[in-house]
Amino acid sequence: MTAPKSHTKDQPDEATAANALLGHCVRLGVKAPLSLDCGVEISDFPVAYQTYGELNADKTNAILVCHALTGDQFVAGKHPISGKEGWWDLMVGPGKTIDTNKYFVICPNILGGCLGTLGPKEINPETEKPWGLGFPVITITDMVRCQALLLDHLGIKKLFAVTGGSMGGMQALEWASLFPKRVFAAIPIASAAHHTAQNIAFHEVGRQAIMADLEWCGGDYLNQGKNPTKGLAVARMAAHITYLSEQALHRKFGRRLQDREALTYGFDADFQVESYLRHQGITFVDRFDANSYLYITRAMDYFDLAERHGGILANAFKGTDVRFCIISFTGDWLYPTEENRRIVHALNSVAANVSFAEVESDKGHDAFLLDEPEFHKVLKGFLDGAAKNYEETLGKA
Amino acid sequence: MTAPKSHTKDQPDEATAANALLGHCVRLGVKAPLSLDCGVEISDFPVAYQTYGELNADKTNAILVCHALTGDQFVAGKHPISGKEGWWDLMVGPGKTIDTNKYFVICPNILGGCLGTLGPKEINPETEKPWGLGFPVITITDMVRCQALLLDHLGIKKLFAVTGGSMGGMQALEWASLFPKRVFAAIPIASAAHHTAQNIAFHEVGRQAIMADLEWCGGDYLNQGKNPTKGLAVARMAAHITYLSEQALHRKFGRRLQDREALTYGFDADFQVESYLRHQGITFVDRFDANSYLYITRAMDYFDLAERHGGILANAFKGTDVRFCIISFTGDWLYPTEENRRIVHALNSVAANVSFAEVESDKGHDAFLLDEPEFHKVLKGFLDGAAKNYEETLGKA
Repeated sequence: MTAPKSHTKDQPDEATAANALLGHCVRLGVKAPLSLDCGVEISDFPVAYQTYGELNADKTNAILVCHALTGDQFVAGKHPISGKEGWWDLMVGPGKTIDTNKYFVICPNILGGCLGTLGPKEINPETEKPWGLGFPVITITDMVRCQALLLDHLGIKKLFAVTGGSMGGMQALEWASLFPKRVFAAIPIASAAHHTAQNIAFHEVGRQAIMADLEWCGGDYLNQGKNPTKGLAVARMAAHITYLSEQALHRKFGRRLQDREALTYGFDADFQVESYLRHQGITFVDRFDANSYLYITRAMDYFDLAERHGGILANAFKGTDVRFCIISFTGDWLYPTEENRRIVHALNSVAANVSFAEVESDKGHDAFLLDEPEFHKVLKGFLDGAAKNYEETLGKA
Repeated sequence: MTAPKSHTKDQPDEATAANALLGHCVRLGVKAPLSLDCGVEISDFPVAYQTYGELNADKTNAILVCHALTGDQFVAGKHPISGKEGWWDLMVGPGKTIDTNKYFVICPNILGGCLGTLGPKEINPETEKPWGLGFPVITITDMVRCQALLLDHLGIKKLFAVTGGSMGGMQALEWASLFPKRVFAAIPIASAAHHTAQNIAFHEVGRQAIMADLEWCGGDYLNQGKNPTKGLAVARMAAHITYLSEQALHRKFGRRLQDREALTYGFDADFQVESYLRHQGITFVDRFDANSYLYITRAMDYFDLAERHGGILANAFKGTDVRFCIISFTGDWLYPTEENRRIVHALNSVAANVSFAEVESDKGHDAFLLDEPEFHKVLKGFLDGAAKNYEETLGKA
């Protein structure tokens, strides 16, 4: 292992993972802290992650998969807590589009998350209580810096590829911008280089719904034995609408009634779409921390790659050698093709190596999680080509 | 006056309006109750309304303006409570598009509303307490039936026109369908003949936000001295996003910061769009009743003109003599042109007299409330033509 030990705890790490259900867990920032964008330094903090496939001897076959707002490290196989399939099980596995017979896939729970990596529900060693709103506000860049420490720990100098959908795509873009020498290929999917006013607006509604819940207790609910489940459920419901296209909602539910023959003239879930949304809200609160939701949505709202580069997105990628594959979906109104095309134009203007595919799908933003054959074909084609190129590059070196 | 007295209180009516600020107020359903779609009968109930201009001797110059979800009877001039301009002051007044020098404009607060007409915040005479959730669930059709009683009271047998935007347009459509002989022209604007799954979904989020507020008290907040203002504010915020196009939000706010030079790395309203939304929420709760919001959104979700006519929208207008002008806006994603075109196709299939205009505007659904010259031109053109036709028809009769 060539990991720079200064950033990881010498021993023990994985062996003492507090919760075996969380997969691998390592403590990072042990000998040198991680400086966050907000100015706070964090040190000796946990990062939970999962891996799939085998890292080759040269450590050149690693793909970093970055998860979205409510995702986690369990990309494929059976989720140890929910018992359901991982969120990208369709995509990642032996013989699948991201083929774990060839690639070593790593997915860390993001900084600010709530499944083992440092986040607002973890214990603040100074107070010995959950951080709550005392947790520093983090950014997409901070998440990526944290992931880079994890790669150091794993001794991976350069990723073959970094990919992810939605907020995962933001991380992929940030990786390519921040660590261009550590990434051969970047594949941001259904993503954007910044949050628009409408994106921020929807997130703000979710945050206000959480904060409106008296059980949020100013963020201190874990210390007070409360849980703002109602507010968090409303936040999830509002967000969930943005993940589906109008057409998908129409096809799935239309105006069909839920287990009844006629309208009840009341406020029960008469319509299937109401019942579905309520279910989305109720089940979400069992697996997610309300403060994490606040912090992660904030990180997404703050994301604006261009802003950090004098307002010019192209500057974020000047002179890059990274190969890009940008993928959008026609039915995605959360991060529409137009936003993805902005990234492509920026990359073109710095003569980057970029492929762009707009996949025809009326399923909405969530299409990146679904069985969309054209999408998988595009991604597999790009990965195969890039792998060949990477091998050639490595052979020459 | 030829009003069928059986439906109105003989005396007194307007003179004893409980609150002079509410404009005119009449008690309807006095001698014969009004049967609602849910099966409940209501009688001797208040309807608050406002009028503009003068009713002519023949009572042939009346235009019924129907307000939207959060509107009220104060269409034009200064609102007696808020002190602001009425919601359609740009449209209605002397010499304006709906010219009160020519037309007699009537706008009642809708059934279920909260500004003087019977709704869940009014006193239930049986319990002598506010109705709350004991109030019957009402429909758009019920609102229209109630308005018909008001016209009876005013002695107006036939409207020259009925119009309104959004939910006001639904009422205009329902008028044309339910009382085709009482309407010469119908002008539904930025509206739809049914609520889609996405429409219902957004409303359900709002309702759940209200119901999640502990101060909602199962709908009994008025009796318990509480008010679910936080939940209602969240509902308003979520809905407000749907009233504006993404482009409008971008133009108005983009990612601009609110009274600060840099991000604060906190949960204050860093962005202008957050501050704006919070303001929309906070100011709304001062003027609106949370239960009314539940009942009216429910009425909109239940609205499906086709469903009541064997699933075929055209059947709602079979043999109609009403002249229609359907107006949509390109930037309206709440009730998009496609939904309005469905209405046009249905009307065409029964050989109805229908004009259709899709007005170019990137302002979103709220364009119907704004100074959109093309929209005003279309509406004025239609009204002028229809008025001429109506006079000819009357002359022949």
